[in-house]
Amino acid sequence: MKRILIAQTPEHIGETVEVEGWIQTVRKHGKIAFFDMYDKTGLLQVVVVTPERLQECQALEQRTAVKVVGLVKKRGEKYVNPNIVTGTIELEATEKIEIIASSQILPFDMGGKDLNLELPTLLDYRPLTLKHEKVRDIFVIQAALAKEFRKAAEELGCTEIFVPTIAAGATEGGAEVFKIEYFNHEAFLTQSPQLYKQVMVGVFERVYTIAKAYRSEPSVTTRHLTEATQMDIEIGFIEKFEDLLDALEYVGTSMIKRVTDAHEHILKEFTVEKPLIPTKIPRLTLREAQEIITKRTGKDLSNEPDLNPEDEKEICFWAKETQNSDFVTITHFPTKKRAFYTMPDPQNPEYSLSYDLLFRGIEILSGSQRVHNYEQLVDAMKKKNVNPESFAMYLMAFKYGMPPEGGFSFGLERLTMKVLELANIREASLFPRDMERIDERLSTLSHADKKNS
Amino acid sequence: MKRILIAQTPEHIGETVEVEGWIQTVRKHGKIAFFDMYDKTGLLQVVVVTPERLQECQALEQRTAVKVVGLVKKRGEKYVNPNIVTGTIELEATEKIEIIASSQILPFDMGGKDLNLELPTLLDYRPLTLKHEKVRDIFVIQAALAKEFRKAAEELGCTEIFVPTIAAGATEGGAEVFKIEYFNHEAFLTQSPQLYKQVMVGVFERVYTIAKAYRSEPSVTTRHLTEATQMDIEIGFIEKFEDLLDALEYVGTSMIKRVTDAHEHILKEFTVEKPLIPTKIPRLTLREAQEIITKRTGKDLSNEPDLNPEDEKEICFWAKETQNSDFVTITHFPTKKRAFYTMPDPQNPEYSLSYDLLFRGIEILSGSQRVHNYEQLVDAMKKKNVNPESFAMYLMAFKYGMPPEGGFSFGLERLTMKVLELANIREASLFPRDMERIDERLSTLSHADKKNS
Repeated sequence: MKRILIAQTPEHIGETVEVEGWIQTVRKHGKIAFFDMYDKTGLLQVVVVTPERLQECQALEQRTAVKVVGLVKKRGEKYVNPNIVTGTIELEATEKIEIIASSQILPFDMGGKDLNLELPTLLDYRPLTLKHEKVRDIFVIQAALAKEFRKAAEELGCTEIFVPTIAAGATEGGAEVFKIEYFNHEAFLTQSPQLYKQVMVGVFERVYTIAKAYRSEPSVTTRHLTEATQMDIEIGFIEKFEDLLDALEYVGTSMIKRVTDAHEHILKEFTVEKPLIPTKIPRLTLREAQEIITKRTGKDLSNEPDLNPEDEKEICFWAKETQNSDFVTITHFPTKKRAFYTMPDPQNPEYSLSYDLLFRGIEILSGSQRVHNYEQLVDAMKKKNVNPESFAMYLMAFKYGMPPEGGFSFGLERLTMKVLELANIREASLFPRDMERIDERLSTLSHADKKNS
Repeated sequence: MKRILIAQTPEHIGETVEVEGWIQTVRKHGKIAFFDMYDKTGLLQVVVVTPERLQECQALEQRTAVKVVGLVKKRGEKYVNPNIVTGTIELEATEKIEIIASSQILPFDMGGKDLNLELPTLLDYRPLTLKHEKVRDIFVIQAALAKEFRKAAEELGCTEIFVPTIAAGATEGGAEVFKIEYFNHEAFLTQSPQLYKQVMVGVFERVYTIAKAYRSEPSVTTRHLTEATQMDIEIGFIEKFEDLLDALEYVGTSMIKRVTDAHEHILKEFTVEKPLIPTKIPRLTLREAQEIITKRTGKDLSNEPDLNPEDEKEICFWAKETQNSDFVTITHFPTKKRAFYTMPDPQNPEYSLSYDLLFRGIEILSGSQRVHNYEQLVDAMKKKNVNPESFAMYLMAFKYGMPPEGGFSFGLERLTMKVLELANIREASLFPRDMERIDERLSTLSHADKKNS
């Protein structure tokens, strides 16, 4: 007999079928027992009445993996459960209940709609807690976001590229890089696929990549990971700065719209509203945004080179209240606060042709038009105390006809966090890394050699 | 005026259009000039006759980025070139030839159909050599392989996952791991996404990921990289070992078939035949394969625990000659030669439920059914001198109902190499890393701090 998926069972009323999955709950009442089992497609109620099957039921525990062969029966009207995909039927385990793999006693209750655990426990037991439906659904959203990102990138005409994470120089200078022992050399983990995607504009014009980004940040926040997943796009032959804004707003809003439309039930589970996406996303320069915030809050921001987290929240409140938008694009950050490859605004070089996309109070995307002229780029590096010799291969791309170009990148975990309004980015990473944890807490790892430093 | 892509120009005969791209070649003959320009969609011949435009032509060099506005004209019958997408038309540069970005003089000729460079030069000038059509096309194939891999994985019902590359323990033991300084701890780059994808079978049943795999192999071969891209699938609730063979052969052959069908012109460019894919891929145990090789060559392989590169070639010759297949699946490698998580064959535990998929003389895929019982897995680790304490989180997944499962992985660069029959895997990596190179040759890097070791 061949397994069918649980979501397919309502199509087989009156037939004997085989299903497999895990036990969610068991309720035994003497001569009758019920259990809920699930596979990746949904939940199924199984009823057990024969003595043989009741006997087999005894060993079932939560999360036992089972195979059940039985008869699909229509439920009476008043027993229909509209909340589950199999709510119109139940399975009577007539033929077989077979334990495929047993489960140890769970260290905490996994039965409720919510998994009420403190974050450290949620992460300490990651292989188990990921099995909880609501935790699992976070990563259903994550997979959907990645898929829709790729789709939008291909709609823009981008080619997918695979770029390295081991580099000889730190991507953007700075100290927050992880060092690797690379044979007899020192190497680094890339802070982003930035430089390589720029090089590839000279080859494919438009490219995208989903890549790892590593930041050795010696701080613990709710929105940073040491290893994150970045979704990057870079576009060449642009006519003007606004082409980039159009592209990033297209990718950002269409990705989020498609994912939230397709997974309304998950949004409901997290009591999150569908995002407000107006036809035209509000665009503000940093200074315009700061003036709005000043008007609303009285805070003087005229000397601030960036928006801090409270400012990001405030300008998003403004966008929602006055523009009916959960998104707002902020442009023209000070040139001195952005990386060397950022194009200064020719109108006012103190500010740059850079942007962030904010979504519900947090930056989910960052990027800029780039300096594409070789000599200008070398100058920009020197001004930022970046040694051009360390970036010889990157610079080579600009010697042979690099057109005007720019790009942007989303953090996949941060995006997942915001779409579901999670409190901490660690909830949006299957196996989050931070300065205190690599799966297990580093402080308690017996096998991680602590260094005397 | 809005840019159109070069491939669209034949739809605009008689109209004035704007195109952008790079100069391939320029031919000036006094009062008339021609140049070929290309964008990512193809090549276009531009003709220049007016004095103003001829003047603008003077500064054009190979790989200059240009914008041209002119009239699309039908070519006379005898000038039609069936080899290019715009072969029925040419563009007369009536309005404008504008240099978008200039190009320095090329260090070598890029005009020919082949780029006849030694491998070190090909890699030393990577941002430039990648612009050559035939080099670029390697990565068109690579992007297509990744896309078709994901498509096939989703057809199998797999969910995409994103797993970490920084780990506290070496994935499979062994010394060939890169060490990272992780705050005050020692950490490693993962040798594969193996352990995490197995954990995720307990969550999503079937998963896939495209991830980096790092191997600190102190040797230089034509088929290994220190940083490679791995395409991984893991499948739970299998009924039998053969389910895995069916799955891997489905993914392997459908991916390669779809890519080679869609890109016949690139195969032609590389003078590579389309692969032979019979309805049923030949399956041999290692011992059966060795016996066939012994019959064909006389070599005694009865004590060999694996196929060496010559053996792989020989058994592929056999598959092609006798089974009309460019693929052959080899199963049942010795248990002692495979990683701890490999399931021994219950019929004969000296051999394991493992497999390789060979394609045209080389292994492109490896995998196995896994040990899914917790106690058996801990025992298997101990037998291989792997410390279970170092894999506490991995092991946790097996405590709570892990069903029978297995999986496999393809190396994306190696697959690309074989589909186009490239001589060296470095040609199939945009920016290959090996023990001698991180973009630039490590021996000549002035800024990589050499360690006294």
